Amino acid sequence: MPLTGQHFIAGQWTGLPQHDFLAWDPRTDAPLPTHFADGSEAEVAAAASAAADAFAPYRRLDTEQRAAYLEAIAEEIEALGDELLNRAEQETALPAARLQGERGRTCGQLRAFAGWLRSPLHPVIKDAALPDRQPLPRPDIRLGQVPLGPVAVFGASNFPLAFSVAGGDTASALAAGCPVIVKGHPAHPGTSELVAGAIGRAISRCNLPAGVFSLIQGRSPALSVALVRHPVIAAVGFTGSGPVGQALAKEAANRPRPIPFYGELGAVNPQVILPGQLAAQPEQLAEMQIGSMMMGQGQFCTSPGLVLLPNSEGADRYLASLAEGLSSQTEGVMLTPGIARAYRSGADHLASQNGVTELARGRNEGNPNGAVPLIYRVSADDALGNAALFEEVFGPCVLVITGAQGPALDALVDTLPGQLTCTIHGTADDFARHEALLEALAYTSGRLIANQMPTGVEVCAAQNHGGPWPASTAAQTTSVGAEAIQRFLRPLAYQNWPTAQLPQALR
Amino acid sequence: MPLTGQHFIAGQWTGLPQHDFLAWDPRTDAPLPTHFADGSEAEVAAAASAAADAFAPYRRLDTEQRAAYLEAIAEEIEALGDELLNRAEQETALPAARLQGERGRTCGQLRAFAGWLRSPLHPVIKDAALPDRQPLPRPDIRLGQVPLGPVAVFGASNFPLAFSVAGGDTASALAAGCPVIVKGHPAHPGTSELVAGAIGRAISRCNLPAGVFSLIQGRSPALSVALVRHPVIAAVGFTGSGPVGQALAKEAANRPRPIPFYGELGAVNPQVILPGQLAAQPEQLAEMQIGSMMMGQGQFCTSPGLVLLPNSEGADRYLASLAEGLSSQTEGVMLTPGIARAYRSGADHLASQNGVTELARGRNEGNPNGAVPLIYRVSADDALGNAALFEEVFGPCVLVITGAQGPALDALVDTLPGQLTCTIHGTADDFARHEALLEALAYTSGRLIANQMPTGVEVCAAQNHGGPWPASTAAQTTSVGAEAIQRFLRPLAYQNWPTAQLPQALR
Repeated sequence: MPLTGQHFIAGQWTGLPQHDFLAWDPRTDAPLPTHFADGSEAEVAAAASAAADAFAPYRRLDTEQRAAYLEAIAEEIEALGDELLNRAEQETALPAARLQGERGRTCGQLRAFAGWLRSPLHPVIKDAALPDRQPLPRPDIRLGQVPLGPVAVFGASNFPLAFSVAGGDTASALAAGCPVIVKGHPAHPGTSELVAGAIGRAISRCNLPAGVFSLIQGRSPALSVALVRHPVIAAVGFTGSGPVGQALAKEAANRPRPIPFYGELGAVNPQVILPGQLAAQPEQLAEMQIGSMMMGQGQFCTSPGLVLLPNSEGADRYLASLAEGLSSQTEGVMLTPGIARAYRSGADHLASQNGVTELARGRNEGNPNGAVPLIYRVSADDALGNAALFEEVFGPCVLVITGAQGPALDALVDTLPGQLTCTIHGTADDFARHEALLEALAYTSGRLIANQMPTGVEVCAAQNHGGPWPASTAAQTTSVGAEAIQRFLRPLAYQNWPTAQLPQALR
Repeated sequence: MPLTGQHFIAGQWTGLPQHDFLAWDPRTDAPLPTHFADGSEAEVAAAASAAADAFAPYRRLDTEQRAAYLEAIAEEIEALGDELLNRAEQETALPAARLQGERGRTCGQLRAFAGWLRSPLHPVIKDAALPDRQPLPRPDIRLGQVPLGPVAVFGASNFPLAFSVAGGDTASALAAGCPVIVKGHPAHPGTSELVAGAIGRAISRCNLPAGVFSLIQGRSPALSVALVRHPVIAAVGFTGSGPVGQALAKEAANRPRPIPFYGELGAVNPQVILPGQLAAQPEQLAEMQIGSMMMGQGQFCTSPGLVLLPNSEGADRYLASLAEGLSSQTEGVMLTPGIARAYRSGADHLASQNGVTELARGRNEGNPNGAVPLIYRVSADDALGNAALFEEVFGPCVLVITGAQGPALDALVDTLPGQLTCTIHGTADDFARHEALLEALAYTSGRLIANQMPTGVEVCAAQNHGGPWPASTAAQTTSVGAEAIQRFLRPLAYQNWPTAQLPQALR
């Protein structure tokens, strides 16, 4: 099936690609054939109106019906077969095996949310009436939840399936009972179109109102702003860069009716290596670091971009092993020309900081949108007080801070901005000797990890993917895992309410 | 003990009342003797610095120690005896019996949070490791929570105890493990000082760091802005007026590091009377309405300010009964001269709207800050499309919309702004016949009530005191009840974390 290049609004393919844009193959640095429509306020208005109409019938579905819808989406995505994987590979340069895994994650996530709908994690809270209580009787009160309303979703370029059209934000908003309007990421519009079609077929199969899902293609900032500002939109899910996420968060807060903005914006994900573990296995630690930083060419929000390393003989072995390991890594193709350019300028900016020297680099292959893997080093003395060293360079670029031990380590941790994750590599003895440090890291991050790497965010009930600002714009929520549904619900208390009119779960 | 008129910052009475303000007795319209210091950025900086220092030791307390602290505060407030009640009566004109009840509520609330600390309502979520899972092993992940940091609390004038210095926001933030800085309401600074002293004695008894609580007195908007903007502040709890709450919410969102702002801003709390119930007991409905609207001279955020009434013979009896009931009510003294003035101008504004006529008024007693109880009426035809009719008039002023039935009722409900509560007065048959209406009200309010009045917000596990904007700035949270603690916590996932270093509850 050829791609339409159109928006998918409430069941209809619409929009002539007159004001258009092209998908791009980053591997060949050449455009792909289909022209895609560039959305405007008109498409936002049409999708919002349809979503508003669909909200009441959609929220009335019981949890089993919503669960079946999520499962139908997963099946329809799987039914796209290689067509989806091939298109995603063309648009992102991500290898087929990775995309296959990401498809599995995406469909598994949809099914996991279906499971959590069927088996909620939290008990229903009820207070029975106490008619004889003094001085006043207590009424019967039961605490329910209702969905917020239509949700705008902004997917990320780096997970064209799992954090895009049918990714975690869409799945959790749909699970909550909210219609979804996705602003498709312009780096993979064909992939987005294919997934939107799959969702459309699931809607038809489940006899749902068409407005429960729309995809608007486009690349203009004005389109994103129009979507966040639209009065019908009740919440926003966003995964992407700090500057864009922070700007849209302000739009959401400064609307006439402010709405919650759930932005997952990224981090450097510090790796704190403690002395005992470093002495015990410096080469293995270096190998873990190389493996994790190279996943997806470092284009993960949990990519380990910062290593805090004490000085020791083990540290020398670790650095030597890192250098040797990286030198055998080859340049990969980045997701987009823009990301490749930003990588080079970000790495140059890091390299220009006081005291920063290059430890190692991977092989340059001359790819048009390539990113040579880089590891820099700097001493703790030079690092202290330089906030530029903690800025994320999106891609396979890592900074090792040496001499990070004792008071210098504590001081460095105190200056870290909010993080999605912090990893501590340590023995049982290391952990026992660093309690204050562990506590400081807890108050800096959304996920603490011991002796494992942060890449590979497990989709499970206990997951938290978020963290203190600026890692996230809403540290009290997670964008991955069961609790992600809570972002799109609000409490509603029922006082003395007739049993027949209570939601089933509250009776 | 004479009052100091000073701030209470980290255990010290401080601040010379040079830039000062006076407490006022609204009953005599005369100042009370003590001069109170008017806080500035210097006091904010001192309290914030102490709160930052206290955060780490305070958050490390186990839940039993925090529970004991909350109970100690309750005991110390009770130990203030009549001195507290007398001062509150002077500053607020609220009757002694009401203040006695409010003290009971305040201390009961502190003890309830202690109980919820000891017996959490939500289960701990854990995912066990699956080392043999294909294609990748699953790590062990456990979901904990950590407190956000120092919290700024802005109390309300209308509950000088229960929503003020040691009110629900303070109690829930302290329960969460957050130090608290209260900006005292300038309408009851002496009451605030007495309660701050009680909290200070509880801190000494429990050997806590002094910075865990501060009270800054003052009345300038610049002081409030400085507190919300201070970098150490991690969240804000606010109860008060819409304009002030919305302005401070924008300050919180537009900080360099945005923080959550939990503002409970008020509502008109519609009373929807359905035909069967109206026919069955019009006089009782009128009596309930009069009783509820007169509580605290209507100065409750849940005061029932709007009645939606169908036309019928029962409606005529209801209106006659309302008019007769109100005519025997006497003018009461309002909390402050400013509130009394705002009441009169708000009521005049309502009376000037197209089609609005006076149904009844209470007796004018010539009090300096009195508020004559008022009931206005308007037809549904005249009401439709006039948003001014849904604006809260803080005080004993009620608007009855007649002819609110069928499509007119549906249209009126569709135009309601977000509400803290909506009450439906109906028989079982009424409820069964109005399912769409009930659903519309659910999506407009934070608490649905059947056949009871909204005043008297029960402090219990299932309570929700909040609602869609503009009733609240954070519809996803409650400011009353067990879940209020959640506002001051955020999730933290522990992956593969050593058991010895896990929080006790996660082991």
